[in-house]
Amino acid sequence: MSESAENGEESGDLVTPWNVETSNDKGLDYEKLIKKFGCHSLSSEIIARVENLTGKRAHVMLRRGVFFAHRDLTQILDRVQNGKPFFLYTGRGASSGSLHLGHLIPFMFSKYLQDAFNVPLVIQMTDDEKFLWKDLTLDQSKKMALNNIKDIIAVGFDPEKTFIFMDTEYMGHLYENVLKIWKFVTTNQTRAIFGFTNEDSMGKAAFPAIQAAPCFSSSFPQIFNSRKDIPCLIPCAIDQDPYFRMCRDVAPRLKFPKPALISSTFLPALQGMQKKMAASDMNTCIYIDDTPNQIKNKIKKYAYSGGQETVELHKELGGNCDVDTSYQFLKFFLDDDDKLEEIRQRYTSGEMLTSELKEITIGVVQRLVAELQERRKNVTDETVKEFMRVRKLAFDY
Amino acid sequence: MSESAENGEESGDLVTPWNVETSNDKGLDYEKLIKKFGCHSLSSEIIARVENLTGKRAHVMLRRGVFFAHRDLTQILDRVQNGKPFFLYTGRGASSGSLHLGHLIPFMFSKYLQDAFNVPLVIQMTDDEKFLWKDLTLDQSKKMALNNIKDIIAVGFDPEKTFIFMDTEYMGHLYENVLKIWKFVTTNQTRAIFGFTNEDSMGKAAFPAIQAAPCFSSSFPQIFNSRKDIPCLIPCAIDQDPYFRMCRDVAPRLKFPKPALISSTFLPALQGMQKKMAASDMNTCIYIDDTPNQIKNKIKKYAYSGGQETVELHKELGGNCDVDTSYQFLKFFLDDDDKLEEIRQRYTSGEMLTSELKEITIGVVQRLVAELQERRKNVTDETVKEFMRVRKLAFDY
Repeated sequence: MSESAENGEESGDLVTPWNVETSNDKGLDYEKLIKKFGCHSLSSEIIARVENLTGKRAHVMLRRGVFFAHRDLTQILDRVQNGKPFFLYTGRGASSGSLHLGHLIPFMFSKYLQDAFNVPLVIQMTDDEKFLWKDLTLDQSKKMALNNIKDIIAVGFDPEKTFIFMDTEYMGHLYENVLKIWKFVTTNQTRAIFGFTNEDSMGKAAFPAIQAAPCFSSSFPQIFNSRKDIPCLIPCAIDQDPYFRMCRDVAPRLKFPKPALISSTFLPALQGMQKKMAASDMNTCIYIDDTPNQIKNKIKKYAYSGGQETVELHKELGGNCDVDTSYQFLKFFLDDDDKLEEIRQRYTSGEMLTSELKEITIGVVQRLVAELQERRKNVTDETVKEFMRVRKLAFDY
Repeated sequence: MSESAENGEESGDLVTPWNVETSNDKGLDYEKLIKKFGCHSLSSEIIARVENLTGKRAHVMLRRGVFFAHRDLTQILDRVQNGKPFFLYTGRGASSGSLHLGHLIPFMFSKYLQDAFNVPLVIQMTDDEKFLWKDLTLDQSKKMALNNIKDIIAVGFDPEKTFIFMDTEYMGHLYENVLKIWKFVTTNQTRAIFGFTNEDSMGKAAFPAIQAAPCFSSSFPQIFNSRKDIPCLIPCAIDQDPYFRMCRDVAPRLKFPKPALISSTFLPALQGMQKKMAASDMNTCIYIDDTPNQIKNKIKKYAYSGGQETVELHKELGGNCDVDTSYQFLKFFLDDDDKLEEIRQRYTSGEMLTSELKEITIGVVQRLVAELQERRKNVTDETVKEFMRVRKLAFDY
């Protein structure tokens, strides 16, 4: 049975791997997305089970519903309970300049999952995708990907447990699984899932299999000792779901396990919840190479406020955390639940003004970025080479 | 301007890379194909020029119009005249068992061209294509390709000048050029050229770029010292023209030279000119591992005769060489022009009976196959490995 579903356009929300937008000022209707995509809510029972199995408190993004949906996560947890292996797979395209905070979400969360479950992580850089979709050369796309890789490594990954690859370099290893996916998915199916038309390039029509292939452990014989039966769990933003719906549809045909997913909401643009933070619009973003001053100024200038027009009105009516970007950033990045709740109450009641809320957010984001920059300093071309070397990791299969 | 044209179906002839058939008992109307495909006739002037430039008599298949059409061959000859390099590119899918005589045509002709012009030859084995189009596993397809490679080597290629690769092995090197083709060819275009539909697999829709990519010297940096400006000449059967039409359309966009082509008619099936010799129907073929007895029996039993019903009628009316398979085989494989003309006259006049014509053809084919078998004996797994090793050839650029 096919899991393929629509892209959630009926609700006024557009969610595809290439576009995310809503007219709703509270952001996307994620509950509707779950229904339309056919995935499942991340229940508090599952979160408790994760804490139980890992012996660690759930990550802030898990506790707060930033990661809100899943496919077959319970089956991955069953495997953990039975001492059976799985691996993590995530990735990104390539963008010019540094990564922004939105880019970091799946990586920060992957780092948590990797530490909590002690499993291999494979990271795909789709430099090919960027080349196919954007007006740039292959060399530009590859350079951008290599630069992005340094930012990703700065999240704190362990080279003993993490393999990073660029499609243009790793295709020789990936191709057989790409072929297997290609053979059993029709153009009809990819059109239903991705909305491709006859005007799209051959490359766009071919690409989804390339993002799907790393779901299978046989794409990494060097890591998994040529085993084909080890499933992956994919931490990603919900807009990537279509790729893996397609992959889940075809997996049984290939006698490979279906990939499991754990999907996140989007970090909003500074300007508000209607858009995600997107490198295509620089002012929506805080970059990980921004200076403390840039961070302060951007948040002061651009961060959409849920506060009232005047101080008087604000004290009377209170602020709205649901639409306030600064508050939303704290939801993603402030680990202290009590403090966040206190902020929410004080801002909602009108006691805390927007300026104070912004100051807190500025401090939290500055600290986060400073830590990344500190680690980024130690990432050299040699470090990148080591992460990208086709090799066994610190796990036996 | 696009060179894309139709597949010649209007004339009652079907010619695609996957199907060749006609209702005409004299075979395909190749003149019509030239017009429909938009390529050019191989004139006697061009053949004379080839002889002049190479200082060798033109190959029997060139003299007799087996290779009958071209694209930009004159530009390749201009290059030769000016001392500029080019290379040869040909290939094949994978088929089970041994190659048959029809498979050998482009390879025998490539061997002649390589010797005459002293240029590198690259041979692509599309094991991926066979996997995508046929009901077989990737392992089966790869094994078949490896076996076919031994037969190809037996044609007599020089490992110093010839590079053979299987797509599943070489894709890591080919992928960047595949991507470049993918980006600039739309689904609309491949549908017009190849007739793909929504019911076709993603893989079929993606594949044409993979056959097109080796047209560009940059796909072989090890051979061409990373030069991107060296054009290829492709000896192939005319049914492969669509791939290279597409490639010629996109080449200027990529700032690569367009591939030149020299295209052949099809060796007919034993049963007659309506079909080409095809491995999908064993009885239509003479295989290069057939014994002398098998060859004799097949030609005696199956070779369609242009003779008359009775000896009396034959002596009165004469035979028809245009539809006689034995005669057609001689046209491909008997090097002696005078002898062929004598046979034609004696058979057409009715003086030579079908049995005598068949005896001559049996002898010619037995000798050809015996020579191939003799060379095939010396082709080991090691030989194959050497031909497939990614390496420089005996040419400097």
